[in-house]
Amino acid sequence: MADTPTAALVVIGSEVLSAKVQDENGPYAARRLRELGVQLLAVHTVPDREEDIVGSLDLLRRRADWCFTSGGVGPTHDDLTPRAVARAFGRRVGRSAALADGIRAMYRAHHGGAEPPDAALRMADVPEGTRLLGDPGYPTLAVENVVMLPGVPRFFRYQLDAIAPLLQAPPWRLASVFLSIGEEVFAPALDAVVAAHPAVEIGSYPRFDGADHKVKLTVESKDLAAVQAALAALLAALPADGVVRVEGP
Amino acid sequence: MADTPTAALVVIGSEVLSAKVQDENGPYAARRLRELGVQLLAVHTVPDREEDIVGSLDLLRRRADWCFTSGGVGPTHDDLTPRAVARAFGRRVGRSAALADGIRAMYRAHHGGAEPPDAALRMADVPEGTRLLGDPGYPTLAVENVVMLPGVPRFFRYQLDAIAPLLQAPPWRLASVFLSIGEEVFAPALDAVVAAHPAVEIGSYPRFDGADHKVKLTVESKDLAAVQAALAALLAALPADGVVRVEGP
Repeated sequence: MADTPTAALVVIGSEVLSAKVQDENGPYAARRLRELGVQLLAVHTVPDREEDIVGSLDLLRRRADWCFTSGGVGPTHDDLTPRAVARAFGRRVGRSAALADGIRAMYRAHHGGAEPPDAALRMADVPEGTRLLGDPGYPTLAVENVVMLPGVPRFFRYQLDAIAPLLQAPPWRLASVFLSIGEEVFAPALDAVVAAHPAVEIGSYPRFDGADHKVKLTVESKDLAAVQAALAALLAALPADGVVRVEGP
Repeated sequence: MADTPTAALVVIGSEVLSAKVQDENGPYAARRLRELGVQLLAVHTVPDREEDIVGSLDLLRRRADWCFTSGGVGPTHDDLTPRAVARAFGRRVGRSAALADGIRAMYRAHHGGAEPPDAALRMADVPEGTRLLGDPGYPTLAVENVVMLPGVPRFFRYQLDAIAPLLQAPPWRLASVFLSIGEEVFAPALDAVVAAHPAVEIGSYPRFDGADHKVKLTVESKDLAAVQAALAALLAALPADGVVRVEGP
Protein backbone atom coordinates (compact mmCIF):
# COMPACT_ATOMS: atom_id res chain seq x y z
CA MET A 1 0.00 0.00 0.00
CA ALA A 2 1.21 3.47 -0.86
CA ASP A 3 2.35 6.16 1.55
CA THR A 4 -1.20 7.51 1.39
CA PRO A 5 -3.71 4.68 1.52
CA THR A 6 -7.14 5.64 0.22
CA ALA A 7 -10.63 4.88 1.48
CA ALA A 8 -14.25 5.35 0.49
CA LEU A 9 -17.41 5.07 2.58
CA VAL A 10 -20.88 3.89 1.62
CA VAL A 11 -23.47 5.07 4.16
CA ILE A 12 -26.48 2.77 3.88
CA GLY A 13 -29.19 5.00 5.16
CA SER A 14 -32.71 5.51 3.85
CA GLU A 15 -33.25 7.16 7.23
CA VAL A 16 -30.51 9.70 6.47
CA LEU A 17 -31.85 10.48 2.99
CA SER A 18 -35.37 10.94 4.38
CA ALA A 19 -34.01 13.15 7.18
CA LYS A 20 -35.21 10.91 10.00
CA VAL A 21 -31.73 10.95 11.46
CA GLN A 22 -28.61 12.93 10.67
CA ASP A 23 -25.59 10.83 9.72
CA GLU A 24 -22.79 10.95 12.30
CA ASN A 25 -20.68 8.19 10.81
CA GLY A 26 -19.49 10.02 7.69
CA PRO A 27 -18.09 12.97 9.67
CA TYR A 28 -16.53 10.63 12.25
CA ALA A 29 -14.91 8.48 9.56
CA ALA A 30 -13.57 11.61 7.80
CA ARG A 31 -11.93 12.86 11.02
CA ARG A 32 -10.60 9.48 12.11
CA LEU A 33 -9.21 8.53 8.68
CA ARG A 34 -7.53 11.91 8.38
CA GLU A 35 -5.85 11.42 11.75
CA LEU A 36 -4.72 7.98 10.57
CA GLY A 37 -3.12 9.39 7.41
CA VAL A 38 -5.72 7.76 5.13
CA GLN A 39 -7.23 9.77 2.26
CA LEU A 40 -11.03 9.59 2.05
CA LEU A 41 -11.91 9.74 -1.66
CA ALA A 42 -15.70 9.72 -1.55
CA VAL A 43 -18.76 9.16 0.61
CA HIS A 44 -21.91 7.80 -1.01
CA THR A 45 -25.13 7.88 0.99
CA VAL A 46 -27.56 5.40 -0.54
CA PRO A 47 -30.96 3.92 0.40
CA ASP A 48 -31.43 0.47 1.97
CA ARG A 49 -31.77 -1.12 -1.48
CA GLU A 50 -29.49 -3.92 -2.62
CA GLU A 51 -28.95 -2.49 -6.12
CA ASP A 52 -27.94 0.90 -4.80
CA ILE A 53 -25.49 -0.61 -2.32
CA VAL A 54 -23.99 -2.89 -4.98
CA GLY A 55 -23.75 0.02 -7.45
CA SER A 56 -21.70 2.15 -5.08
CA LEU A 57 -19.58 -0.79 -3.87
CA ASP A 58 -18.76 -1.76 -7.45
CA LEU A 59 -17.53 1.74 -8.16
CA LEU A 60 -15.73 2.56 -4.92
CA ARG A 61 -14.05 -0.73 -4.00
CA ARG A 62 -12.07 -0.54 -7.25
CA ARG A 63 -10.98 3.05 -6.65
CA ALA A 64 -9.95 2.91 -3.00
CA ASP A 65 -7.64 0.70 -0.96
CA TRP A 66 -10.40 0.37 1.66
CA CYS A 67 -14.13 0.59 1.13
CA PHE A 68 -16.14 0.92 4.34
CA THR A 69 -19.86 0.50 4.68
CA SER A 70 -22.00 1.93 7.47
CA GLY A 71 -25.23 0.17 8.44
CA GLY A 72 -27.40 -2.66 7.20
CA VAL A 73 -25.80 -5.43 9.29
CA GLY A 74 -28.72 -6.04 11.70
CA PRO A 75 -31.40 -8.76 11.62
CA THR A 76 -34.32 -7.01 9.81
CA HIS A 77 -35.55 -6.76 6.21
CA ASP A 78 -33.68 -3.49 5.63
CA ASP A 79 -30.33 -5.02 6.68
CA LEU A 80 -28.96 -5.85 3.25
CA THR A 81 -25.27 -5.11 3.45
CA PRO A 82 -23.78 -8.64 3.69
CA ARG A 83 -25.95 -9.78 0.76
CA ALA A 84 -24.98 -6.72 -1.29
CA VAL A 85 -21.28 -7.26 -0.56
CA ALA A 86 -21.61 -10.93 -1.54
CA ARG A 87 -23.24 -9.88 -4.83
CA ALA A 88 -20.60 -7.24 -5.53
CA PHE A 89 -17.90 -9.92 -5.24
CA GLY A 90 -19.91 -12.77 -6.83
CA ARG A 91 -19.78 -14.80 -3.61
CA ARG A 92 -22.44 -16.88 -1.92
CA VAL A 93 -23.88 -16.10 1.52
CA GLY A 94 -23.46 -18.76 4.19
CA ARG A 95 -23.76 -19.01 7.95
CA SER A 96 -20.46 -18.37 9.73
CA ALA A 97 -20.05 -20.83 12.60
CA ALA A 98 -17.70 -18.45 14.43
CA LEU A 99 -20.17 -15.57 14.19
CA ALA A 100 -23.13 -17.76 15.17
CA ASP A 101 -21.23 -18.95 18.26
CA GLY A 102 -20.44 -15.36 19.18
CA ILE A 103 -24.09 -14.29 18.79
CA ARG A 104 -25.22 -17.23 20.95
CA ALA A 105 -22.69 -16.40 23.68
CA MET A 106 -23.63 -12.68 23.63
CA TYR A 107 -27.37 -13.42 23.67
CA ARG A 108 -27.10 -15.89 26.54
CA ALA A 109 -25.05 -13.43 28.57
CA HIS A 110 -27.73 -10.75 28.15
CA HIS A 111 -30.82 -12.96 28.44
CA GLY A 112 -30.17 -15.20 31.44
CA GLY A 113 -28.77 -18.09 29.42
CA ALA A 114 -31.62 -18.25 26.88
CA GLU A 115 -30.98 -19.34 23.28
CA PRO A 116 -31.26 -16.56 20.65
CA PRO A 117 -34.21 -16.56 18.21
CA ASP A 118 -33.37 -17.53 14.65
CA ALA A 119 -33.66 -13.91 13.52
CA ALA A 120 -30.67 -13.01 15.70
CA LEU A 121 -28.63 -15.73 14.04
CA ARG A 122 -29.35 -14.17 10.63
CA MET A 123 -26.57 -11.75 11.51
CA ALA A 124 -24.18 -14.68 11.08
CA ASP A 125 -25.20 -15.08 7.41
CA VAL A 126 -22.31 -13.41 5.61
CA PRO A 127 -20.44 -13.66 2.31
CA GLU A 128 -18.33 -16.80 2.04
CA GLY A 129 -14.73 -16.10 3.00
CA THR A 130 -15.63 -13.18 5.28
CA ARG A 131 -12.72 -12.29 7.58
CA LEU A 132 -13.28 -11.15 11.16
CA LEU A 133 -11.23 -8.10 12.14
CA GLY A 134 -10.80 -6.00 15.28
CA ASP A 135 -12.30 -7.08 18.61
CA PRO A 136 -12.88 -10.88 18.54
CA GLY A 137 -15.80 -10.38 20.97
CA TYR A 138 -17.49 -7.93 18.59
CA PRO A 139 -15.82 -8.57 15.26
CA THR A 140 -15.91 -6.47 12.12
CA LEU A 141 -16.80 -8.24 8.86
CA ALA A 142 -14.44 -7.82 5.91
CA VAL A 143 -14.46 -9.23 2.38
CA GLU A 144 -11.34 -8.40 0.38
CA ASN A 145 -11.04 -4.60 0.81
CA VAL A 146 -14.66 -4.03 1.90
CA VAL A 147 -15.15 -3.55 5.65
CA MET A 148 -18.72 -3.64 6.99
CA LEU A 149 -19.25 -1.36 9.98
CA PRO A 150 -22.48 -1.12 11.97
CA GLY A 151 -24.79 1.88 11.50
CA VAL A 152 -25.41 2.72 15.16
CA PRO A 153 -22.89 5.54 15.73
CA ARG A 154 -21.53 4.24 19.02
CA PHE A 155 -20.81 0.82 17.48
CA PHE A 156 -19.50 2.34 14.23
CA ARG A 157 -16.94 4.35 16.19
CA TYR A 158 -16.01 1.38 18.37
CA GLN A 159 -15.37 -0.90 15.40
CA LEU A 160 -13.53 1.71 13.34
CA ASP A 161 -11.28 2.47 16.31
CA ALA A 162 -10.69 -1.27 16.84
CA ILE A 163 -9.29 -1.69 13.30
CA ALA A 164 -7.35 1.59 13.29
CA PRO A 165 -3.96 -0.16 13.68
CA LEU A 166 -4.55 -1.84 10.30
CA LEU A 167 -5.00 1.55 8.63
CA GLN A 168 -2.29 3.71 10.20
CA ALA A 169 -0.08 5.62 7.72
CA PRO A 170 2.20 8.67 7.85
CA PRO A 171 0.39 11.89 8.87
CA TRP A 172 -0.42 14.96 6.80
CA ARG A 173 1.32 18.29 7.27
CA LEU A 174 -1.00 21.31 7.12
CA ALA A 175 -0.43 25.04 6.95
CA SER A 176 -3.25 27.60 7.02
CA VAL A 177 -3.16 31.22 5.88
CA PHE A 178 -5.97 33.52 7.07
CA LEU A 179 -6.72 36.48 4.80
CA SER A 180 -8.65 39.72 5.20
CA ILE A 181 -9.15 40.02 1.42
CA GLY A 182 -11.72 38.33 -0.84
CA GLU A 183 -10.99 35.44 -3.22
CA GLU A 184 -11.56 37.66 -6.27
CA VAL A 185 -8.57 39.81 -5.24
CA PHE A 186 -5.97 37.05 -5.10
CA ALA A 187 -7.39 34.32 -7.38
CA PRO A 188 -4.81 34.86 -10.20
CA ALA A 189 -1.87 34.81 -7.72
CA LEU A 190 -3.29 31.69 -6.09
CA ASP A 191 -3.70 29.98 -9.48
CA ALA A 192 0.00 30.53 -10.22
CA VAL A 193 1.09 28.99 -6.89
CA VAL A 194 -1.28 26.04 -7.38
CA ALA A 195 0.20 25.41 -10.84
CA ALA A 196 3.79 25.62 -9.57
CA HIS A 197 3.24 23.30 -6.57
CA PRO A 198 1.40 20.21 -7.78
CA ALA A 199 2.72 18.08 -4.89
CA VAL A 200 0.53 19.91 -2.35
CA GLU A 201 -3.22 20.31 -2.08
CA ILE A 202 -4.31 23.92 -1.76
CA GLY A 203 -7.82 24.81 -0.61
CA SER A 204 -9.55 28.20 -0.46
CA TYR A 205 -12.43 28.60 1.99
CA PRO A 206 -14.29 31.92 2.04
CA ARG A 207 -16.52 32.89 4.94
CA PHE A 208 -19.11 35.60 5.23
CA ASP A 209 -19.86 35.77 8.92
CA GLY A 210 -17.82 38.61 10.38
CA ALA A 211 -14.91 36.41 11.54
CA ASP A 212 -11.43 38.01 11.71
CA HIS A 213 -10.72 36.72 8.18
CA LYS A 214 -12.57 36.49 4.87
CA VAL A 215 -10.74 33.48 3.46
CA LYS A 216 -8.73 30.59 4.87
CA LEU A 217 -6.18 29.02 2.52
CA THR A 218 -4.90 25.55 3.39
CA VAL A 219 -1.70 23.95 2.09
CA GLU A 220 -1.35 20.24 2.69
CA SER A 221 0.86 17.29 1.88
CA LYS A 222 2.59 14.42 3.62
CA ASP A 223 5.88 16.01 2.57
CA LEU A 224 6.76 18.76 5.07
CA ALA A 225 9.31 20.39 2.75
CA ALA A 226 6.71 20.60 -0.03
CA VAL A 227 4.27 22.34 2.34
CA GLN A 228 6.95 24.78 3.47
CA ALA A 229 7.93 25.60 -0.13
CA ALA A 230 4.33 26.14 -1.28
CA LEU A 231 3.59 28.23 1.83
CA ALA A 232 6.61 30.45 1.15
CA ALA A 233 5.53 30.91 -2.48
CA LEU A 234 2.00 31.75 -1.39
CA LEU A 235 3.14 34.35 1.16
CA ALA A 236 5.40 35.92 -1.47
CA ALA A 237 2.52 36.09 -3.99
CA LEU A 238 -0.17 37.48 -1.67
CA PRO A 239 -0.39 41.16 -0.64
CA ALA A 240 1.32 41.22 2.79
CA ASP A 241 -1.29 43.51 4.34
CA GLY A 242 -4.01 40.99 3.44
CA VAL A 243 -2.51 38.27 5.67
CA VAL A 244 -4.12 38.13 9.13
CA ARG A 245 -2.08 35.16 10.41
CA VAL A 246 -0.40 31.91 9.44
CA GLU A 247 -0.69 28.57 11.28
CA GLY A 248 1.53 25.50 10.85
CA PRO A 249 2.92 23.45 9.27
CA MET B 1 -43.20 14.73 -13.07
CA ALA B 2 -44.59 11.97 -10.90
CA ASP B 3 -46.40 12.39 -7.60
CA THR B 4 -43.02 11.84 -5.93
CA PRO B 5 -40.32 13.78 -7.73
CA THR B 6 -36.83 12.51 -7.01
CA ALA B 7 -33.57 14.29 -6.33
CA ALA B 8 -29.89 13.58 -5.81
CA LEU B 9 -27.14 15.75 -4.36
CA VAL B 10 -23.46 15.97 -5.20
CA VAL B 11 -21.51 17.67 -2.42
CA ILE B 12 -18.29 19.01 -3.92
CA GLY B 13 -16.08 19.11 -0.90
CA SER B 14 -12.46 18.08 -0.54
CA GLU B 15 -12.70 20.03 2.73
CA VAL B 16 -15.50 17.71 3.93
CA LEU B 17 -13.62 14.53 2.97
CA SER B 18 -10.49 15.77 4.72
CA ALA B 19 -12.56 16.74 7.80
CA LYS B 20 -11.65 20.43 7.67
CA VAL B 21 -15.33 21.28 7.82
CA GLN B 22 -18.43 19.21 8.48
CA ASP B 23 -21.00 19.30 5.70
CA GLU B 24 -24.23 21.09 6.66
CA ASN B 25 -25.76 21.18 3.19
CA GLY B 26 -26.54 17.47 2.83
CA PRO B 27 -28.55 17.33 6.07
CA TYR B 28 -30.31 20.61 5.23
CA ALA B 29 -31.21 19.41 1.72
CA ALA B 30 -32.50 16.09 3.13
CA ARG B 31 -34.80 17.91 5.57
CA ARG B 32 -35.99 20.54 3.12
CA LEU B 33 -36.62 18.10 0.26
CA ARG B 34 -38.55 15.80 2.59
CA GLU B 35 -40.75 18.71 3.67
CA LEU B 36 -41.30 19.52 0.00
CA GLY B 37 -42.43 15.96 -0.82
CA VAL B 38 -39.31 15.24 -2.90
CA GLN B 39 -37.52 11.90 -2.49
CA LEU B 40 -33.74 12.19 -2.07
CA LEU B 41 -32.22 9.12 -3.75
CA ALA B 42 -28.54 9.61 -3.03
CA VAL B 43 -25.88 12.00 -1.77
CA HIS B 44 -22.36 11.73 -3.18
CA THR B 45 -19.59 13.66 -1.47
CA VAL B 46 -16.68 14.01 -3.90
CA PRO B 47 -13.39 15.95 -4.01
CA ASP B 48 -12.88 19.20 -5.94
CA ARG B 49 -11.76 17.26 -9.02
CA GLU B 50 -13.51 17.65 -12.35
CA GLU B 51 -13.55 13.91 -13.14
CA ASP B 52 -15.12 13.01 -9.82
CA ILE B 53 -17.81 15.65 -10.19
CA VAL B 54 -18.56 14.58 -13.77
CA GLY B 55 -18.64 10.91 -12.72
CA SER B 56 -21.28 11.49 -10.06
CA LEU B 57 -23.28 13.90 -12.24
CA ASP B 58 -23.35 11.40 -15.11
CA LEU B 59 -24.78 8.75 -12.82
CA LEU B 60 -27.18 10.80 -10.73
CA ARG B 61 -28.67 13.22 -13.26
CA ARG B 62 -30.05 10.25 -15.19
CA ARG B 63 -31.58 8.63 -12.11
CA ALA B 64 -33.22 11.62 -10.47
CA ASP B 65 -35.64 14.31 -11.63
CA TRP B 66 -33.38 16.93 -10.02
CA CYS B 67 -29.66 16.73 -9.43
CA PHE B 68 -28.31 19.39 -7.08
CA THR B 69 -24.69 20.28 -6.57
CA SER B 70 -23.24 22.01 -3.52
CA GLY B 71 -20.10 24.10 -3.87
CA GLY B 72 -17.49 24.87 -6.48
CA VAL B 73 -19.15 27.97 -7.96
CA GLY B 74 -16.70 30.61 -6.66
CA PRO B 75 -13.79 32.30 -8.44
CA THR B 76 -10.77 30.14 -7.45
CA HIS B 77 -8.94 27.15 -8.93
CA ASP B 78 -10.98 24.69 -6.88
CA ASP B 79 -14.30 26.04 -8.19
CA LEU B 80 -14.93 23.51 -10.94
CA THR B 81 -18.65 22.90 -10.90
CA PRO B 82 -19.81 24.90 -13.95
CA ARG B 83 -17.03 23.33 -16.04
CA ALA B 84 -17.90 19.84 -14.81
CA VAL B 85 -21.60 20.39 -15.53
CA ALA B 86 -20.74 21.63 -19.03
CA ARG B 87 -18.66 18.51 -19.61
CA ALA B 88 -21.37 16.19 -18.28
CA PHE B 89 -23.79 17.65 -20.85
CA GLY B 90 -21.26 18.10 -23.68
CA ARG B 91 -21.77 21.88 -23.66
CA ARG B 92 -19.28 24.69 -24.00
CA VAL B 93 -18.57 27.25 -21.26
CA GLY B 94 -19.20 30.89 -22.11
CA ARG B 95 -19.57 34.17 -20.26
CA SER B 96 -23.19 34.95 -19.40
CA ALA B 97 -23.87 38.66 -19.98
CA ALA B 98 -26.73 38.61 -17.47
CA LEU B 99 -24.55 37.07 -14.76
CA ALA B 100 -21.61 39.38 -15.52
CA ASP B 101 -23.93 42.41 -15.22
CA GLY B 102 -25.21 41.11 -11.89
CA ILE B 103 -21.69 40.56 -10.56
CA ARG B 104 -20.68 44.09 -11.63
CA ALA B 105 -23.73 45.64 -9.95
CA MET B 106 -23.18 43.65 -6.74
CA TYR B 107 -19.44 44.46 -6.66
CA ARG B 108 -19.99 48.18 -7.24
CA ALA B 109 -22.60 48.30 -4.48
CA HIS B 110 -20.17 46.75 -1.98
CA HIS B 111 -16.97 48.51 -3.13
CA GLY B 112 -17.94 52.19 -3.51
CA GLY B 113 -18.67 51.97 -7.24
CA ALA B 114 -15.39 50.21 -8.21
CA GLU B 115 -15.25 47.76 -11.11
CA PRO B 116 -14.77 44.09 -10.16
CA PRO B 117 -11.45 42.34 -10.90
CA ASP B 118 -11.54 39.86 -13.74
CA ALA B 119 -11.41 36.94 -11.29
CA ALA B 120 -14.81 37.96 -9.92
CA LEU B 121 -16.25 37.89 -13.44
CA ARG B 122 -15.08 34.28 -13.81
CA MET B 123 -18.18 33.39 -11.86
CA ALA B 124 -20.17 34.41 -14.98
CA ASP B 125 -18.45 31.68 -17.05
CA VAL B 126 -21.11 28.98 -17.15
CA PRO B 127 -22.31 26.20 -19.44
CA GLU B 128 -24.04 27.50 -22.58
CA GLY B 129 -27.80 27.59 -22.13
CA THR B 130 -27.61 27.93 -18.33
CA ARG B 131 -30.97 29.05 -16.88
CA LEU B 132 -31.16 31.43 -13.94
CA LEU B 133 -33.65 30.35 -11.28
CA GLY B 134 -34.87 31.76 -7.97
CA ASP B 135 -33.89 35.25 -6.81
CA PRO B 136 -32.93 37.36 -9.87
CA GLY B 137 -30.58 39.39 -7.63
CA TYR B 138 -28.73 36.22 -6.56
CA PRO B 139 -29.69 33.66 -9.18
CA THR B 140 -29.23 29.91 -9.10
CA LEU B 141 -27.59 28.28 -12.14
CA ALA B 142 -29.41 25.37 -13.79
CA VAL B 143 -28.60 23.24 -16.84
CA GLU B 144 -31.35 20.81 -17.77
CA ASN B 145 -32.12 19.03 -14.46
CA VAL B 146 -28.84 19.97 -12.74
CA VAL B 147 -29.08 22.85 -10.27
CA MET B 148 -25.82 24.36 -8.98
CA LEU B 149 -26.07 25.63 -5.41
CA PRO B 150 -23.30 27.47 -3.56
CA GLY B 151 -21.25 25.65 -0.92
CA VAL B 152 -21.38 28.28 1.85
CA PRO B 153 -24.22 26.92 4.02
CA ARG B 154 -26.03 30.25 4.45
CA PHE B 155 -26.12 30.77 0.68
CA PHE B 156 -26.96 27.13 -0.03
CA ARG B 157 -30.01 27.38 2.22
CA TYR B 158 -31.03 30.74 0.75
CA GLN B 159 -30.89 29.48 -2.85
CA LEU B 160 -32.59 26.15 -2.12
CA ASP B 161 -35.41 27.97 -0.32
CA ALA B 162 -35.71 30.42 -3.24
CA ILE B 163 -36.38 27.60 -5.71
CA ALA B 164 -38.61 25.58 -3.35
CA PRO B 165 -41.82 26.55 -5.20
CA LEU B 166 -40.47 24.73 -8.29
CA LEU B 167 -40.05 21.50 -6.30
CA GLN B 168 -43.21 21.34 -4.17
CA ALA B 169 -45.08 18.01 -4.31
CA PRO B 170 -47.66 16.19 -2.14
CA PRO B 171 -46.40 15.45 1.39
CA TRP B 172 -45.51 12.13 2.97
CA ARG B 173 -47.61 10.47 5.67
CA LEU B 174 -45.63 8.93 8.51
CA ALA B 175 -46.51 6.67 11.42
CA SER B 176 -44.01 5.59 14.08
CA VAL B 177 -44.24 2.65 16.46
CA PHE B 178 -41.94 2.65 19.49
CA LEU B 179 -41.08 -0.78 20.87
CA SER B 180 -39.57 -2.05 24.11
CA ILE B 181 -38.41 -5.30 22.44
CA GLY B 182 -35.34 -5.98 20.30
CA GLU B 183 -35.34 -6.42 16.51
CA GLU B 184 -34.44 -10.11 16.82
CA VAL B 185 -37.78 -10.75 18.61
CA PHE B 186 -40.07 -9.37 15.93
CA ALA B 187 -38.01 -9.62 12.71
CA PRO B 188 -40.06 -12.50 11.19
CA ALA B 189 -43.39 -10.71 11.93
CA LEU B 190 -41.99 -7.50 10.48
CA ASP B 191 -40.81 -9.31 7.34
CA ALA B 192 -44.33 -10.60 6.73
CA VAL B 193 -45.86 -7.11 7.02
CA VAL B 194 -43.17 -5.64 4.75
CA ALA B 195 -43.92 -8.32 2.13
CA ALA B 196 -47.69 -7.73 2.32
CA HIS B 197 -47.48 -3.92 2.10
CA PRO B 198 -45.15 -3.03 -0.76
CA ALA B 199 -46.75 0.42 -1.21
CA VAL B 200 -45.26 1.72 2.05
CA GLU B 201 -41.67 2.10 3.20
CA ILE B 202 -41.01 0.46 6.55
CA GLY B 203 -37.89 1.28 8.54
CA SER B 204 -36.55 -0.29 11.73
CA TYR B 205 -34.22 1.81 13.89
CA PRO B 206 -32.71 0.20 16.99
CA ARG B 207 -31.17 2.29 19.73
CA PHE B 208 -28.96 1.29 22.63
CA ASP B 209 -28.91 4.35 24.84
CA GLY B 210 -31.45 3.78 27.60
CA ALA B 211 -34.29 5.67 25.87
CA ASP B 212 -37.89 4.56 26.64
CA HIS B 213 -37.80 2.29 23.57
CA LYS B 214 -35.37 -0.16 21.97
CA VAL B 215 -36.61 0.17 18.40
CA LYS B 216 -38.56 2.72 16.39
CA LEU B 217 -40.45 1.39 13.39
CA THR B 218 -41.54 3.88 10.74
CA VAL B 219 -44.29 3.37 8.16
CA GLU B 220 -44.36 5.89 5.35
CA SER B 221 -46.10 6.62 2.07
CA LYS B 222 -47.82 9.49 0.29
CA ASP B 223 -51.01 7.41 0.47
CA LEU B 224 -52.59 7.88 3.92
CA ALA B 225 -54.83 4.81 3.56
CA ALA B 226 -51.80 2.64 2.74
CA VAL B 227 -50.00 3.88 5.87
CA GLN B 228 -53.07 3.20 8.01
CA ALA B 229 -53.46 -0.32 6.60
CA ALA B 230 -49.78 -1.21 7.09
CA LEU B 231 -49.81 0.28 10.60
CA ALA B 232 -52.87 -1.81 11.53
CA ALA B 233 -51.21 -4.95 10.16
CA LEU B 234 -48.04 -4.15 12.08
CA LEU B 235 -49.84 -3.61 15.38
CA ALA B 236 -51.74 -6.88 14.87
CA ALA B 237 -48.49 -8.76 14.19
CA LEU B 238 -46.40 -7.33 17.07
CA PRO B 239 -46.73 -8.51 20.68
CA ALA B 240 -49.05 -5.88 22.24
CA ASP B 241 -47.00 -5.58 25.44
CA GLY B 242 -43.93 -4.68 23.37
CA VAL B 243 -45.53 -1.46 22.05
CA VAL B 244 -44.56 1.62 24.05
CA ARG B 245 -46.51 4.12 21.92
CA VAL B 246 -47.66 4.96 18.39
CA GLU B 247 -47.39 8.33 16.67
CA GLY B 248 -49.19 9.46 13.50
CA PRO B 249 -50.10 9.14 10.72
